[in-house]
Amino acid sequence: MVVVMKPGAAPEDVDAVVSRVEASGGSAFVSRGVQRTIVGLVGDIAAFQTLNLRAMPGVGEVVRVSKPYKLVSRENHPEATTVSVGGVPIGPDTFTLIAGPCAVETPEQTLQSALMAKAAGATLLRGGAFKPRTSPYAFQGLGEKGLRILADVRAETGLPVVTEVVDAADVALVAEWADMLQVGTRNMQNFALLQAVGSAGRPVMLKRGMTATYEEWLMAAEYIAQRGNLDIVLCERGIRTYETATRNTLDIAAVPMMHSLSHLPVIVDPSHSGGKRELVVPLSRAAIAAGADAIIVDVHPDPTAALCDGPQALYGDDLDELARACRELPPLVGRRLVS
Amino acid sequence: MVVVMKPGAAPEDVDAVVSRVEASGGSAFVSRGVQRTIVGLVGDIAAFQTLNLRAMPGVGEVVRVSKPYKLVSRENHPEATTVSVGGVPIGPDTFTLIAGPCAVETPEQTLQSALMAKAAGATLLRGGAFKPRTSPYAFQGLGEKGLRILADVRAETGLPVVTEVVDAADVALVAEWADMLQVGTRNMQNFALLQAVGSAGRPVMLKRGMTATYEEWLMAAEYIAQRGNLDIVLCERGIRTYETATRNTLDIAAVPMMHSLSHLPVIVDPSHSGGKRELVVPLSRAAIAAGADAIIVDVHPDPTAALCDGPQALYGDDLDELARACRELPPLVGRRLVS
Amino acid sequence: MVVVMKPGAAPEDVDAVVSRVEASGGSAFVSRGVQRTIVGLVGDIAAFQTLNLRAMPGVGEVVRVSKPYKLVSRENHPEATTVSVGGVPIGPDTFTLIAGPCAVETPEQTLQSALMAKAAGATLLRGGAFKPRTSPYAFQGLGEKGLRILADVRAETGLPVVTEVVDAADVALVAEWADMLQVGTRNMQNFALLQAVGSAGRPVMLKRGMTATYEEWLMAAEYIAQRGNLDIVLCERGIRTYETATRNTLDIAAVPMMHSLSHLPVIVDPSHSGGKRELVVPLSRAAIAAGADAIIVDVHPDPTAALCDGPQALYGDDLDELARACRELPPLVGRRLVS
Amino acid sequence: MVVVMKPGAAPEDVDAVVSRVEASGGSAFVSRGVQRTIVGLVGDIAAFQTLNLRAMPGVGEVVRVSKPYKLVSRENHPEATTVSVGGVPIGPDTFTLIAGPCAVETPEQTLQSALMAKAAGATLLRGGAFKPRTSPYAFQGLGEKGLRILADVRAETGLPVVTEVVDAADVALVAEWADMLQVGTRNMQNFALLQAVGSAGRPVMLKRGMTATYEEWLMAAEYIAQRGNLDIVLCERGIRTYETATRNTLDIAAVPMMHSLSHLPVIVDPSHSGGKRELVVPLSRAAIAAGADAIIVDVHPDPTAALCDGPQALYGDDLDELARACRELPPLVGRRLVS
Repeated sequence: MVVVMKPGAAPEDVDAVVSRVEASGGSAFVSRGVQRTIVGLVGDIAAFQTLNLRAMPGVGEVVRVSKPYKLVSRENHPEATTVSVGGVPIGPDTFTLIAGPCAVETPEQTLQSALMAKAAGATLLRGGAFKPRTSPYAFQGLGEKGLRILADVRAETGLPVVTEVVDAADVALVAEWADMLQVGTRNMQNFALLQAVGSAGRPVMLKRGMTATYEEWLMAAEYIAQRGNLDIVLCERGIRTYETATRNTLDIAAVPMMHSLSHLPVIVDPSHSGGKRELVVPLSRAAIAAGADAIIVDVHPDPTAALCDGPQALYGDDLDELARACRELPPLVGRRLVS
Repeated sequence: MVVVMKPGAAPEDVDAVVSRVEASGGSAFVSRGVQRTIVGLVGDIAAFQTLNLRAMPGVGEVVRVSKPYKLVSRENHPEATTVSVGGVPIGPDTFTLIAGPCAVETPEQTLQSALMAKAAGATLLRGGAFKPRTSPYAFQGLGEKGLRILADVRAETGLPVVTEVVDAADVALVAEWADMLQVGTRNMQNFALLQAVGSAGRPVMLKRGMTATYEEWLMAAEYIAQRGNLDIVLCERGIRTYETATRNTLDIAAVPMMHSLSHLPVIVDPSHSGGKRELVVPLSRAAIAAGADAIIVDVHPDPTAALCDGPQALYGDDLDELARACRELPPLVGRRLVS
Repeated sequence: MVVVMKPGAAPEDVDAVVSRVEASGGSAFVSRGVQRTIVGLVGDIAAFQTLNLRAMPGVGEVVRVSKPYKLVSRENHPEATTVSVGGVPIGPDTFTLIAGPCAVETPEQTLQSALMAKAAGATLLRGGAFKPRTSPYAFQGLGEKGLRILADVRAETGLPVVTEVVDAADVALVAEWADMLQVGTRNMQNFALLQAVGSAGRPVMLKRGMTATYEEWLMAAEYIAQRGNLDIVLCERGIRTYETATRNTLDIAAVPMMHSLSHLPVIVDPSHSGGKRELVVPLSRAAIAAGADAIIVDVHPDPTAALCDGPQALYGDDLDELARACRELPPLVGRRLVS
Repeated sequence: MVVVMKPGAAPEDVDAVVSRVEASGGSAFVSRGVQRTIVGLVGDIAAFQTLNLRAMPGVGEVVRVSKPYKLVSRENHPEATTVSVGGVPIGPDTFTLIAGPCAVETPEQTLQSALMAKAAGATLLRGGAFKPRTSPYAFQGLGEKGLRILADVRAETGLPVVTEVVDAADVALVAEWADMLQVGTRNMQNFALLQAVGSAGRPVMLKRGMTATYEEWLMAAEYIAQRGNLDIVLCERGIRTYETATRNTLDIAAVPMMHSLSHLPVIVDPSHSGGKRELVVPLSRAAIAAGADAIIVDVHPDPTAALCDGPQALYGDDLDELARACRELPPLVGRRLVS
């Protein structure tokens, strides 16, 4: 960390900072400039943060230089991680298609969606049994009954299952039925939930909070990692901006940025980013080209009857286009489609 | 709701919309314009939303006109609500000062903070025992021990207690000790938590999500209300914008806007909005002048030693200035300071 | 347009709206619902907007339904436009690489940059002679001297020139030397400049304003088109969001969205979006895959000595990677690289 | 400035940074830490910025510490400035009400608006003759004819005139008729215009760009100041955020923040911030309470007939409420209403 003193800070102010740092076991290097004095700190950042240096007399700014996350950082773990979900890899050499219905509605709709997904090249099945909905009056998902449907469809299709969990109290139940636990955008800073999935013994897909910075997202991953679970996949799903013509703004640069900051796989959700069917294929192509390790896509056999997010579900020709992109694009960025 | 057909939509497309609406028990009025046809719907909005009209052939846009929240809306409940917290009112004729430490650290620090708060005119004590922190390496609060300290300080000072709850599993415990439950910004869409506090039999302070729209905020309140608890106070605490010089951007217009959309009290947190001590008094003055029913302010006897958010805690002269503003400004906007 | 009356609006209020609309030459269709009355308007939107219906008694909301832009809209001109810049096409069947230095510094640096660009497959040369800079103390460009250097380099390399103009007073001068006029992000709503380039007889590249909506961007294009110039290319260059780890957030969905709203070509600037060299190639790949008609990239023979935006300029291996992407990706999305 | 080397940067990389800094006439202090080496620079920041240190091998980050603006900064000019507009002060001890029509439409409407403004306590008249409009099809103002109307109304009422200028080519004309030149939000980074008003010999009101940071806003002011004109008033008018229920989000903290960063007066436009009549009075009260030196408010004798922004213009009871707030609130924050 670097402490920047205010112009005109007294020498005793500088001394007080140095003393406090040294008392905590760190070292402080003072550079007295013409306009300002700067103090560089070396030692344990976490300890420095409890010192409250920003509140000391004469202190202008405290600039953090090291990263506040450790277990998930690339700096401390240069090699890219591959996460295995029921035997299906998500990692640096491959490209994985995850697809399925937004919400599990019936056994038939779920099976049909899974078969459509598989035909398009998907090797993992998505599907929501617990749905976080903005409105208390909207369909909230089938709960445990939905989990059972997913397990049945897995048995029939062979596709491992990714599904969301929305409350720490449900983690054990969901972990019993699912191959991968999804933490949704609204829960990215639900710390009790993060800690629970960190102890659940299942890989976790951590969606980016609607307005989370890269750093906050990685800190959320660090909460999971701290419980011993490093099988984490980061999912960019669009952020909230002033532009309302799309549901969210897909931050495509998050793919290379997160790959440079972290060793974890980074995937993209093109369905929830754009919120419109006609955007799913172009955004999927962009995600593959930008280096995503996987994409997760909504499909539905009859979108006009879907209970959740019908307007963005793929089917028919669009799904064929997606399948073609998943076959043709990965080789151009040094990957092969997992099949 | 209004359905706007695409230019060139076929008459059968329009008929299909009308049929689906009527089949659900609603009525549809068709206006055929030169460029487009518009279908106005009358009936049960919640039912219309499940119809997935947006996905039907020929449909361009579906524009919602009624409000999606009911129990908390001003339209359905024109009179402003007063919420009583341990006998202290928060409502349209009064102005209430809520103050205390960001985090409960020790019995002494909590008591001293409470006495400072009371001397400045506060009639409710804030203080965090369960702290949601971005970093897993930061101080996470004292938990139940902190709740006991708060109860002791209440006994000594007579100030009812407002404290945060971060997990649905803790709601019963916190409700046992506290007079008002606070739902923090990161949990505004933690629906399990909202439902739990809705059943806890205590008034709730619902902070605005960091990037929640007014409507999403009111939908979150609706989740609480739906469980039978209408003792809800809405707290504006700054939103996330591109400007990083302040911690958040206080959306001062939220005070009159939320008062016009909802019958619930609206309060402001000037400490977490700005994140800087020197902003607390000006923002508090602005909040009172804009019509806030209360403000909630961090105080600390020794901010440089605070374990949480020291740089924004008030003490000394600043606290005197705040006290003066709380006495002098409310009468100019038709309110009296609760004492 | 649709006028939504407030609940409880008087019949006379509705009549007054209808009368005002009819007096302006339009038609009004009234649907009286249970909660509200809705009035659909048919006729000349521009005329309706001057009626100030929103301010009339009993009016709740006025919802616009038609697009406010005409000349640049896809609705009124379904076929995609190809813009020719000194004989080089930018349009639906091709992919064009535009490259060159951020700023023209010397004849040598400009020529070297142009040769690098050409070797990588570029067929248009970018380079700034007039530079809009946030700080008055930063390098402001060489002005007319820079334009002459660009013309010399065009003569030597055969690459037509794209360069920025920042003031309406300079448009004639820049149009004399350049093949395409660029309007920068800070000037997207400099209406005097838009009108001047609309009359300059040169194709125009219109960068998206830093926080312009799609609609505002198209309205800015409409200003140019209204002066008779429809040779407009829209350039997405990243928008401002709360995320500060990248210079801007590239809104990749703008490519398919703008293609659906407008018949004009849509291109991407991956250099200014990310502001980091290591992001340029991944973002370029994403842009091509998403369907961009061209990209515009900063190159520099010696980025550490660049007077402007050195950290994002490509050279060496990165430039080879970009060249490869420009050859290999376009055929997968039905395009051929212009050469 | 502080240069933070990457972990594992070679000693020669550090030496190269030091040499380049020293070659430019600065000094460099090296602190070798356990994880990273930090180099503190002392000397001329502007010179350092041209060194392109960020692009050198081994460099991780370059953190700027000093402010990039000088003439308008509080650091270099601790005393608050009072700007005089035709004899009317805007400064630290007073509160000034500026009011008038959004656009000059006719002599009668302008005079009536001015009389309403004066009766409410205004001592400066606002009114637009040149209007920057998002749509080329909207009313663009009366131009020079409007300026003459404003001058006539000034002669009749004694109120000095504030009016907008939108193109550098018009500055001399507008300066001939007006007492203060307004630069609008869309032109905050129209550098040719800033330089022109810097040389025009009239005080300037500089509105904040729709998404300008505090620093960019001050850099824009620095462009004006650099031409010798320090009679600059900064106007907060709301910023663009994800919330669309209000036209913009009034950043009320900008008032104390800009007062601490700059010696220039800071005022607020409550009409364009909220875009709704019912928000103008609460936001005006908030602005005065937060310490604004003035507010600028739209009034209109017949808002339903206004050619521009009718829905936010005050009249009748609302205007009386505003007048009362302007009389009663300033004394509570140590100011007197200019009369």
